[in-house]
Amino acid sequence: MARVGIYGATGYTGFELIKILARHPEVEIAFATARSAAGQLLSDVFPTLIDLPLVGVEEADLSGVDLVFTCLPHGAPELIPLVRQALERGVKVVDLSDTFRLVNAEDYQRRRGREHPAPDLLTAAVYGLPELHRERIRAARLVANTGCYPLTAILPLWPLVRAGLIADQTVIVDSKSGVSGAGRSLSLRTHFGETHETFSAYNVGRAHRHLGEMEQETGLHIIFAPHLLPVFRGILSTIYVTLRPHTSLAEARAAYAVFADEPFIKLLPEGRLPELRHVQQTMYLAIGLQPVEPEMGRYIIVATVDNLLKGASGQAVQNMNLMLGLPETLGLM
Amino acid sequence: MARVGIYGATGYTGFELIKILARHPEVEIAFATARSAAGQLLSDVFPTLIDLPLVGVEEADLSGVDLVFTCLPHGAPELIPLVRQALERGVKVVDLSDTFRLVNAEDYQRRRGREHPAPDLLTAAVYGLPELHRERIRAARLVANTGCYPLTAILPLWPLVRAGLIADQTVIVDSKSGVSGAGRSLSLRTHFGETHETFSAYNVGRAHRHLGEMEQETGLHIIFAPHLLPVFRGILSTIYVTLRPHTSLAEARAAYAVFADEPFIKLLPEGRLPELRHVQQTMYLAIGLQPVEPEMGRYIIVATVDNLLKGASGQAVQNMNLMLGLPETLGLM
Amino acid sequence: MARVGIYGATGYTGFELIKILARHPEVEIAFATARSAAGQLLSDVFPTLIDLPLVGVEEADLSGVDLVFTCLPHGAPELIPLVRQALERGVKVVDLSDTFRLVNAEDYQRRRGREHPAPDLLTAAVYGLPELHRERIRAARLVANTGCYPLTAILPLWPLVRAGLIADQTVIVDSKSGVSGAGRSLSLRTHFGETHETFSAYNVGRAHRHLGEMEQETGLHIIFAPHLLPVFRGILSTIYVTLRPHTSLAEARAAYAVFADEPFIKLLPEGRLPELRHVQQTMYLAIGLQPVEPEMGRYIIVATVDNLLKGASGQAVQNMNLMLGLPETLGLM
Amino acid sequence: MARVGIYGATGYTGFELIKILARHPEVEIAFATARSAAGQLLSDVFPTLIDLPLVGVEEADLSGVDLVFTCLPHGAPELIPLVRQALERGVKVVDLSDTFRLVNAEDYQRRRGREHPAPDLLTAAVYGLPELHRERIRAARLVANTGCYPLTAILPLWPLVRAGLIADQTVIVDSKSGVSGAGRSLSLRTHFGETHETFSAYNVGRAHRHLGEMEQETGLHIIFAPHLLPVFRGILSTIYVTLRPHTSLAEARAAYAVFADEPFIKLLPEGRLPELRHVQQTMYLAIGLQPVEPEMGRYIIVATVDNLLKGASGQAVQNMNLMLGLPETLGLM
Repeated sequence: MARVGIYGATGYTGFELIKILARHPEVEIAFATARSAAGQLLSDVFPTLIDLPLVGVEEADLSGVDLVFTCLPHGAPELIPLVRQALERGVKVVDLSDTFRLVNAEDYQRRRGREHPAPDLLTAAVYGLPELHRERIRAARLVANTGCYPLTAILPLWPLVRAGLIADQTVIVDSKSGVSGAGRSLSLRTHFGETHETFSAYNVGRAHRHLGEMEQETGLHIIFAPHLLPVFRGILSTIYVTLRPHTSLAEARAAYAVFADEPFIKLLPEGRLPELRHVQQTMYLAIGLQPVEPEMGRYIIVATVDNLLKGASGQAVQNMNLMLGLPETLGLM
Repeated sequence: MARVGIYGATGYTGFELIKILARHPEVEIAFATARSAAGQLLSDVFPTLIDLPLVGVEEADLSGVDLVFTCLPHGAPELIPLVRQALERGVKVVDLSDTFRLVNAEDYQRRRGREHPAPDLLTAAVYGLPELHRERIRAARLVANTGCYPLTAILPLWPLVRAGLIADQTVIVDSKSGVSGAGRSLSLRTHFGETHETFSAYNVGRAHRHLGEMEQETGLHIIFAPHLLPVFRGILSTIYVTLRPHTSLAEARAAYAVFADEPFIKLLPEGRLPELRHVQQTMYLAIGLQPVEPEMGRYIIVATVDNLLKGASGQAVQNMNLMLGLPETLGLM
Repeated sequence: MARVGIYGATGYTGFELIKILARHPEVEIAFATARSAAGQLLSDVFPTLIDLPLVGVEEADLSGVDLVFTCLPHGAPELIPLVRQALERGVKVVDLSDTFRLVNAEDYQRRRGREHPAPDLLTAAVYGLPELHRERIRAARLVANTGCYPLTAILPLWPLVRAGLIADQTVIVDSKSGVSGAGRSLSLRTHFGETHETFSAYNVGRAHRHLGEMEQETGLHIIFAPHLLPVFRGILSTIYVTLRPHTSLAEARAAYAVFADEPFIKLLPEGRLPELRHVQQTMYLAIGLQPVEPEMGRYIIVATVDNLLKGASGQAVQNMNLMLGLPETLGLM
Repeated sequence: MARVGIYGATGYTGFELIKILARHPEVEIAFATARSAAGQLLSDVFPTLIDLPLVGVEEADLSGVDLVFTCLPHGAPELIPLVRQALERGVKVVDLSDTFRLVNAEDYQRRRGREHPAPDLLTAAVYGLPELHRERIRAARLVANTGCYPLTAILPLWPLVRAGLIADQTVIVDSKSGVSGAGRSLSLRTHFGETHETFSAYNVGRAHRHLGEMEQETGLHIIFAPHLLPVFRGILSTIYVTLRPHTSLAEARAAYAVFADEPFIKLLPEGRLPELRHVQQTMYLAIGLQPVEPEMGRYIIVATVDNLLKGASGQAVQNMNLMLGLPETLGLM
């Protein structure tokens, strides 16, 4: 039985992680931390029937712990010290923030416009996408869990890149995300009255902070327009791509054979496009491929994922399974 | 052309008020105040095409103003001074908080468990329900706009009380409100992720702060269970009442003849119950009456209202029309 | 490995049943029938990644089948012949309609106003509520799965009845159900535009067809007002009950000790009321108990359940587990 | 007082039309027809407080009627005879279907793959977009009201085309529509359970039947991906356009000066993008313009409209006002 700790249990990713771990057959939760809710039960914070005590960060005991998940808000100052402390104690780390996802400090500086707070950790971290980096994740001590939007661009596009089918390196990704992607922190943007029965675009073009991951893993130039959907969970991305002229649907589909043995990736049959319900409450990323004008190479790809599972906490457990030498899909089917 | 001011334009009731006043033919907006958004336009705060400058409270000029609306958060410390200042300058006031709704300071103290902050104003205020107090509202300088939940209990029950048909003074009111009733302030309770696709009861029994209004205006003893609906606007109350044994449906319906000339009250035909859509975006309160076991006097009443219009800002304009000697329904149809 | 068949796989209860059975460790699906969709895959009918062939009723092979679930629309004429055929072949039956839920044909006739189509089967059937009839279900060949609304009234009220605490035999049950309770058949009532962003009551008073079950199992006289919530899954019932005067909260809570070992019933701690999210996607029925005026015996009970799981298909599997001698909670945690 | 008739009052566009006309100061409703609901009141069909009798088509009396609206389902066989009958009687027609929107019968045949049912009417009809064809609409006897999706592509793109700024004639339009766009007819696609809390693409690429209008009015080649949003009303289109290299934001914005006097078109200030709430329940089409990589000419346009008002019934009244010589915005502000 492996023992794991969770730093930051009161956000949506922390809560989903606990729900998965609570039924994982080979893992027990050593601790779960909270800031203002320390001393309470999980059921004091969420309408859940799981009773798990929440402790302050300083009470989290790393003894005998194999791995910790860091689910802190983006930019939390305690992240770097907590990661260092765990690694020094020989405890592996899966980080769910976007701190360690780019390959090197120069790229981070260029894209984010400021120095990385811990370049040595950035270099040590492995980008936590098993479909692309499985062996490196198995050996990693620090894994940077992927972003949810990037997942819906990288996984559908990478096979086409790998097969050399992309003709125009500029690809348009029009994404629509449920509100849980914006987290549980209070903001007008996630107020029911500002989100329900409406729909909006934000940070369109080249502005979103997770564009870097997408371009790093695919090598493409991406125009990205995220939108906020009035649903809780799920992301659907509609991708406009120009392949080599006269690429047939069969050729394009063949590129995805590289994912044939992937447990969590489903290419839908011809003529089908996935919708959010295909993947909500599951670990699957579903892909549909639609020829538009194949003689010009024009295709539309639709990809969907549950942003809290394969897009965040489920992916984190998949990475944990790899890092702890457990079967990759354990607790996730 | 009357001139009116709005204190507190950035909550939902303030915003609805502005939308009504912007198309009211006999009123112009002299000022609209905001706290943190002072200096911005209304369209910087709401996704609206109305461009109205927001000013700080200290910049609000009462010269030539006929009436002000106070739409401050419950318990805002600036309320009492602002009301006094207006009244002293001869400016009438419609207050949308629950500060001045009970008839006297003793009742306030008994129900709220603390002294009223301005007993003289409480005594001077008129409860702003035109269907019951139209003439007093016409003459009033300070009107306490009714609560939205109370409206859905008082208006359906008062005709039955008046007709002497109520057999059991204890009445059960099971109410369901859209999220806009909880205001625009940030709280987990109004976070999309905590409200969407769920449903909950809160403050059930004798705990809700607006029970006092309901009992004051009806003289009944009320068991009240409010619930939070995952919709934006509208309240539906299901009322369980015991009338005198063998009260026929015709007798019960006849009691509502007292509302025959009311412009905003609709008793639905026999066999019909109102739903939220009957009244959303309108000024109507709709009532349906369902006999259950009339031989035992058991009836169910269903009443619905748009909590932001007849339940708040529209009602405030109805009161304003009365106070300024304008046609009561002007700008509201 | 037990083998089970499903008649009627394309409604919401059939689909949920398949999702549960697909991951049940001791059961395999022998067949799943559909009417118009016979010959297609489940994934042609639902946005699901489960590929299960759908067959016509006449192709459903009962050889080697241990149990069948009948998930046909209420009143489907093929139900009785299918049940007879299965029982004659020694195949056990869990029926998810309301055909076999009342104890005898006289009661059925009295409440429904027409003769029961198969009185012998009605007499043979056991009401499928394990918390009340576990031993009889284990021995049954035909189980009538409970209704979803009734569950939220019977389970919270039965312990109080059993403890002799009920003073007034007339109890008010104000229920709110997600739209999935109305099934997947096409009707204006379940059209998105008629249900979304609204809320309505229907069949209030003594009119709902499942009132009979509630009264049969509790022995109470129930005033029932169902409402349609703009959510997909979940029922919340607010129950107004008068216990013996001066019943303390401790006494009332003690009545629920009878459920202490029940795997799927949770009495929340004092001061807590359940909401839909407590139970959505789970098998739990959660109960909260709120004293209102205990000196008068007035209490409010709030009970919630996922109408598709403990309220329908999950309950059906719980019954199946009992009937097949499997651990009761297998495949359901 | 002009007199108008409505053929097809029980769909969403018919109902919205009635709500607008009921408060229009210069129009009275001569008749409103329904098929199965003939003989009932509008309030028997919709949860509305408007009492309007519905008659069968054969009872609709054209005497003294100035104009009729045809709001029949797409492809209704009675459309052509009703239009002919009206025109022969000197009654003007605004048709809300897509039957008369293309300029000529050849184009119709080429795009729809079948002959037009009434080429003479098609030639006589004017495309009902006042911003482009105002004078022709004033003189028209038959106006083909625009489609709701096309409006959100044509109006934002036409000024750029007119200004000669478009560099790449192929434009991507990614649209998201509320469910009311799919009408009130029963289908699984509009069932609450199939639409709520999900999101899907359909007819993507070159397949949508209203692509023709978009291309006819803009002269562009359009890749179109419509999606179904879990909201009731509103369309938001995200448009990916390549302008001439180095087109500045000021130049691009200047192209919209052609709309400066349009009462219902709003170009938002720099840095703002419209969301559904900007336009719901209003007649406005709102446009936001976002430079992405202006040196490459890459821009994103976001346009929103209420599909039932400016996108359908409100537009129909705007056209009616023009055709009857009334002020264009009467009854619409």
